[in-house]
Amino acid sequence: MFDLLKVSSKSNPNSVAGAIANSLKDREKVEVQAIGAGAINQAIKSIAIARGYLVPTGKDICCVPSFAEADVEGEEKTAIRLLIELR
Amino acid sequence: MFDLLKVSSKSNPNSVAGAIANSLKDREKVEVQAIGAGAINQAIKSIAIARGYLVPTGKDICCVPSFAEADVEGEEKTAIRLLIELR
Repeated sequence: MFDLLKVSSKSNPNSVAGAIANSLKDREKVEVQAIGAGAINQAIKSIAIARGYLVPTGKDICCVPSFAEADVEGEEKTAIRLLIELR
Repeated sequence: MFDLLKVSSKSNPNSVAGAIANSLKDREKVEVQAIGAGAINQAIKSIAIARGYLVPTGKDICCVPSFAEADVEGEEKTAIRLLIELR
């Protein structure tokens, strides 16, 4: 299993990037979930920033996007899941 | 060299997905550029849809995000570039 990080439009990309890099210290994959354009924007920026943290340690990452259903306060919404794995 | 597809917030994700899948017929990589949350949202949806087109042909893709400077009508803007490669 791997971590699932939920990113919102108000998430700080630097903090999310730190969480991604941290998850990949002892795991090979981590997943990020985002709902809506603002959240997806923050998620992608976070992954770009996380690459900067990881590349000096000899690791690089890529992400595999897919659609997922997410329950948000009883309402079904279409989320984007970004599976992040070592490249 | 590989193609650079410019995606805007008004791009149709199905059309962009078709262009991505088509580029990867005879190349190993294609790059997508998006400026702003709306455009990045469309780009990521396009990549998720393109996976659906490609997986039945035995190919899967992942994307590597990075920041780039883009000149838009004389104004310098920060764009996101998504390098799409075979997984």
